Amino acid sequence: MTLDDILEEINKADKIAILTHENPDGDAMGSSLAMYHALKNYGKNPDIIIPVHSKVFNCLPGIENIKTESDIEHYDLAISLDCAAINMLNGFANYFENAKVKVCIDHHGTNTMFGDYNYVNPDAPACSEILLVIFEYFGIEVTKDIGTCILTGIITDTGGFKYQGVTAETFEFVAWLLNKGVNVSKVYRQVLQIKTKPNFELHRIANNRMEFLENGKIAYTYITQEDEKNVNAENGDYEGIVENGRDIEGVEVSIFIRQTEKGWKISLRSNDYVNVADACLVFGGGGHPRAAGCTIPGTMEQAKDMIIKEINRLLK
Amino acid sequence: MTLDDILEEINKADKIAILTHENPDGDAMGSSLAMYHALKNYGKNPDIIIPVHSKVFNCLPGIENIKTESDIEHYDLAISLDCAAINMLNGFANYFENAKVKVCIDHHGTNTMFGDYNYVNPDAPACSEILLVIFEYFGIEVTKDIGTCILTGIITDTGGFKYQGVTAETFEFVAWLLNKGVNVSKVYRQVLQIKTKPNFELHRIANNRMEFLENGKIAYTYITQEDEKNVNAENGDYEGIVENGRDIEGVEVSIFIRQTEKGWKISLRSNDYVNVADACLVFGGGGHPRAAGCTIPGTMEQAKDMIIKEINRLLK
Repeated sequence: MTLDDILEEINKADKIAILTHENPDGDAMGSSLAMYHALKNYGKNPDIIIPVHSKVFNCLPGIENIKTESDIEHYDLAISLDCAAINMLNGFANYFENAKVKVCIDHHGTNTMFGDYNYVNPDAPACSEILLVIFEYFGIEVTKDIGTCILTGIITDTGGFKYQGVTAETFEFVAWLLNKGVNVSKVYRQVLQIKTKPNFELHRIANNRMEFLENGKIAYTYITQEDEKNVNAENGDYEGIVENGRDIEGVEVSIFIRQTEKGWKISLRSNDYVNVADACLVFGGGGHPRAAGCTIPGTMEQAKDMIIKEINRLLK
Repeated sequence: MTLDDILEEINKADKIAILTHENPDGDAMGSSLAMYHALKNYGKNPDIIIPVHSKVFNCLPGIENIKTESDIEHYDLAISLDCAAINMLNGFANYFENAKVKVCIDHHGTNTMFGDYNYVNPDAPACSEILLVIFEYFGIEVTKDIGTCILTGIITDTGGFKYQGVTAETFEFVAWLLNKGVNVSKVYRQVLQIKTKPNFELHRIANNRMEFLENGKIAYTYITQEDEKNVNAENGDYEGIVENGRDIEGVEVSIFIRQTEKGWKISLRSNDYVNVADACLVFGGGGHPRAAGCTIPGTMEQAKDMIIKEINRLLK
């Protein structure tokens, strides 16, 4: 059983690194911090290494323990959370690759199984929800802090309990958290609901540019680096834009393109039947059937045409 | 005990009318339909009278049984749901006033107790959640259809499980519904998430007009009847606009003004401490501490100034 192996490696390890994907969202942050608290409570002293994250998550318990880098080259054990492929490890793939033992815990169906031990459950609505099972198996108590971090992952990756895949267990867990004294509304508000002013302004710009293509089945919009500069955007201030298109009646696929230094970052969401992870795999990306991403170089028009061509093959 | 009296009146009544407030939201629709199904299953044959409602709710079980009017003048029993004052009863206050026995079931703290029997719980996050307690007391089983209607009220009145006041019982109920086979994500998507195109366009217009006042503590915006006409808006297409301002960092009170035939309909939302129901009571309106409304005649600028003056008295 993989979990027995993972627990054995945790028991043996002295130096442990906790890693997650670049541009960490709420599930990446929540899963990493939940693992950090759990290992601390288990008697270990792990490093949690995340170079940059949105200030939205400054409310999370333990956030002050995050390191932006580490001078340890060879960890005994590296645990990657919520990350589908090694090249998405926050630019810190070296800590993972150089570790004696590599563990990958994730919920992406496109996970490339890049660890020595891989515990991947694509049915889990959030990576953090998998940790509930793992901690119980390990006999590690889910404290209020751990619960708050896990809740953050669930809230953000389910769009606030609304996506398919949310289970009865999810809601039972939230009820249990409430009884434990966690202010679910407050966490929800902090990690998902409140928009920064630059975030509001980027939404406004993107919504004003929204185009409906293919008889309204595709919603398309974009923002440039100049837009982000103009509104003083920080990391994460573009969050949520891609959902605006998805939630309009008749739309099957929402496309949001964002200019980055590496090229055009494409975010896709679908509603009923288009597997957007398939469309992204063509360009070396991936994700979930209804939420995926990739990066395409060239001009914005080229990137737009290329991704729409892929999506059109999947549209009914 | 009020509930014993209400059950006795239900047992005695032959002709029963179910009524709710004008511009019915998800809690009004869900509570009314849940009561309709419950009374049918209890062996009664009630009329549910709602003159006009958003097509968003056409997905609700039993929606085809709604009457837009009735030729019965004197009901044995009228039950008002989710309605704080008799003048808000959908223009059908006469059915209530002419009924032999009047029952008021509600969760608004500003309820005027206008029934012969009033069962009002301001702590309930939705009127429909109160019905869970009532049906259990009455010995009426909560079927999948009743559960779906109750869920609709909870989802819409809690903004999708996110407001303060959502209890552990709420989440336990949702878990129970999921186990009963209710597709919570589908209901959520239908009643809260999907925007019609006119709704998206009204949001875009309102967001482009948004002003931040009092050092960003107030967000203000509006739409006119002409805007609604221009985008072919239907009843309910302005829903959600007031929440946009509330969710921006630093904002305590969000004001959304909408032109109606009766005057300027003011919708208010607050975050932490301003009791917006107090601000609305001055103008004959009411609601909840964090969500309330009223109507002010005159010009838009007059209405804007009057409501901001009231809010300023409550701002820190």
